[in-house]
Amino acid sequence: MAEMYLGKTTGKPRVVIIGGGFGGVNLARKLKHTQVDVVMVDKHNYHTFQPLLYQVAIGAIESDAVAFPLRRIFTGQKGFSFHMTEVQQINPGLNTVTTTLGDIHYDYLVVATGANSNFFGNKEIERNTMPMKNIPEALNIRSLILQNLEKAAVTTDLAERAALLTFVVVGGGPTGVELAGSLAEMRLNMLCKDYPDLRPEDMKVYLAEGKPKLIAAMSEQASVKAKEFLLDMGVTIYNDVHVTSYNGDQLVIDNGVNIKSRNVFWAAGVKGEVPVGIPQDVVVRGGRIQTDEISRIKGFQNIFAIGDVAAMITPESPEGHPGVAPVAIQQGGHLAKNIIHLVKGEHTEPFKYHDKGSLATIGRNRAVADLGKIRFQGFFAWFVWLFVHIMSLAGFSNKLVVFCNWLINYFTKNTDNRLIIRYYDTETKMVDPIAK
Amino acid sequence: MAEMYLGKTTGKPRVVIIGGGFGGVNLARKLKHTQVDVVMVDKHNYHTFQPLLYQVAIGAIESDAVAFPLRRIFTGQKGFSFHMTEVQQINPGLNTVTTTLGDIHYDYLVVATGANSNFFGNKEIERNTMPMKNIPEALNIRSLILQNLEKAAVTTDLAERAALLTFVVVGGGPTGVELAGSLAEMRLNMLCKDYPDLRPEDMKVYLAEGKPKLIAAMSEQASVKAKEFLLDMGVTIYNDVHVTSYNGDQLVIDNGVNIKSRNVFWAAGVKGEVPVGIPQDVVVRGGRIQTDEISRIKGFQNIFAIGDVAAMITPESPEGHPGVAPVAIQQGGHLAKNIIHLVKGEHTEPFKYHDKGSLATIGRNRAVADLGKIRFQGFFAWFVWLFVHIMSLAGFSNKLVVFCNWLINYFTKNTDNRLIIRYYDTETKMVDPIAK
Repeated sequence: MAEMYLGKTTGKPRVVIIGGGFGGVNLARKLKHTQVDVVMVDKHNYHTFQPLLYQVAIGAIESDAVAFPLRRIFTGQKGFSFHMTEVQQINPGLNTVTTTLGDIHYDYLVVATGANSNFFGNKEIERNTMPMKNIPEALNIRSLILQNLEKAAVTTDLAERAALLTFVVVGGGPTGVELAGSLAEMRLNMLCKDYPDLRPEDMKVYLAEGKPKLIAAMSEQASVKAKEFLLDMGVTIYNDVHVTSYNGDQLVIDNGVNIKSRNVFWAAGVKGEVPVGIPQDVVVRGGRIQTDEISRIKGFQNIFAIGDVAAMITPESPEGHPGVAPVAIQQGGHLAKNIIHLVKGEHTEPFKYHDKGSLATIGRNRAVADLGKIRFQGFFAWFVWLFVHIMSLAGFSNKLVVFCNWLINYFTKNTDNRLIIRYYDTETKMVDPIAK
Repeated sequence: MAEMYLGKTTGKPRVVIIGGGFGGVNLARKLKHTQVDVVMVDKHNYHTFQPLLYQVAIGAIESDAVAFPLRRIFTGQKGFSFHMTEVQQINPGLNTVTTTLGDIHYDYLVVATGANSNFFGNKEIERNTMPMKNIPEALNIRSLILQNLEKAAVTTDLAERAALLTFVVVGGGPTGVELAGSLAEMRLNMLCKDYPDLRPEDMKVYLAEGKPKLIAAMSEQASVKAKEFLLDMGVTIYNDVHVTSYNGDQLVIDNGVNIKSRNVFWAAGVKGEVPVGIPQDVVVRGGRIQTDEISRIKGFQNIFAIGDVAAMITPESPEGHPGVAPVAIQQGGHLAKNIIHLVKGEHTEPFKYHDKGSLATIGRNRAVADLGKIRFQGFFAWFVWLFVHIMSLAGFSNKLVVFCNWLINYFTKNTDNRLIIRYYDTETKMVDPIAK
């Protein structure tokens, strides 16, 4: 296929961005009205607001509240073009990217591909647990939960009924804690309303974490309080453990505990999505690509990596920065400036991360917050969490809808969107096997 | 599997309702606080507000705006139980329904299964066109449209590009007219904003209808005006024609017109979803089940049919009532009263349809309305349409969200939810072929 359609040829230097996540989107925005053309490619036609994916999984909000069509975000931005396509490989010698639509030439290439679930090589766990890194996966989790509740309401096999009502979250980082908290909410507030044949005590929620504490990246205080909130809501927590196997029925933990469960969610680790063509010797721990302090990949002049896929290894950040949205956003914005410096032949400026703090929510109206030296937990933290997330959705036009949804859910203790719109077949691992 | 879990055994007469559409839901609601228990089964776990499905297909609103979890609708209704399951057959001799979950005993059985697309036996058309009778189908249409726009933006094959940008709606009833109108809106308001490489004149919208006029069930005035609105928006309309074949590429119409198109939507006919076990001799034209004036199926004492699947043939309605939501709602409500009469050994009352009028919307702010003798078209009709539909969503809690969405879309001329959340594979006709 001809290359000409994949981004206009205007004579300006062309920046190709692989990935429309937080980093890629902010980079492209900051390159508006500059000396470069921008071509963005992504395998989805939308940006995903990942911090709220667990709310889609739990059925609290619908996909459109956390996904924004990339073409819409950049409507009217001159010199910008978007293509929904998959990158097959990058060709640094040729300055091109090979995609399923054809080859794209670049002058500057930015790898902003993010991270995906890391199963640490365990194929059985990969096949049988449910990850939650994108919208289709979140919807699969929702379908599985609801399908299993439907089955539990009618089965006469008591052991199977218990397994259908046992939910295990593997991984006690922010995602795992938020998902476990939401499941506990579901148990307390929805279960017996919607399923009169089921009792809250029939449903079990487990959280298994490899480290001695939950949300290890946050303060001791936040970590302790998060655990307290979850225990309070009836979640069974195992710290300092690893899940060694899960065959779709029996989950084995290395502390000797075996759990019979039909619902195991994997939030235990991520690894960078490194495109083919990036040499293995620049891939460091966690499958991340090593960059210098201007996000340039080691050994290349015009290829960069930002966000979760990048490990910017400097004396200040010997292991790279944490894989969170603010890092990606700041690296994207900073790289925009540096690319313009490079185009103009000016000096570049090293990146510096401004950590504004961390927040995690647990259930309906409690959260933990570390804002610099200020640490607080409970309802006010939840309110701050709500405010920060609604403000972050600014710039994406669905803010109002999300807010309406939340208000309704908050005041009604209700999560209304429990629609099985993609039937998830647990045997074949396929969705709606035959579309018609 | 044991029957005991499928609806509680309380000793009260049990009404089993197959289908949670407009008829089934209203029947079950009206049986609240009465002498009977109600068991509802549906293959989906939600009620679909079908009149707005085309807005999901076009990406104007998300599924949760038109789908409501059935368990939620009946939360707290004593003596009501719901099961998500497929009915395999009914066994009138045994007074049971066989489902994928097991057998369910009934004292009164109500078939409220609605209607599905009718391809009139043409397997090629069935395989290659896209129907729109439920949410997964509407989402498939959305994915196809957006995927084809993405392809059109990059292909260098001009004939293929034209085919990708040609949209054909077969069937000029309310659904077909509303869908064609929305596609014309998309062409005028979204296309060149989101796809700077495409021009409105590159996109073609066709509407093909077998009858001499559009929306034949409405007044002459409404029909003429609807056609005028569509022509005004650039839709090419063929009346008095039939589509004879479509191989996925070439559509053949019996007026000699051949259209090369990758997007053909089927809204040309419906047929009742008759469960196995209903004798063929009571199935009349359109695959509907013949009933008497209390919705009782011919030849049975305790089996009824309401809504789109029923043809209540009386001197007043020699062909049955039209397959629209108000008929189903009224028949459901009326049957609730008659079932109670039957339980008490009282006389039943014949059904009488109160036709309050018809509305159809064409594009962003025009509609046609027949309210009794009062007929009007244009913006005010659209406003009435909006009001009626928002009020009809009352009782379903997502009204506010739908309304916010609409307001936003209306004032921004924007349809924001253009998310391809189910990748539709045109070759295999499968969705997200491998879920992970």
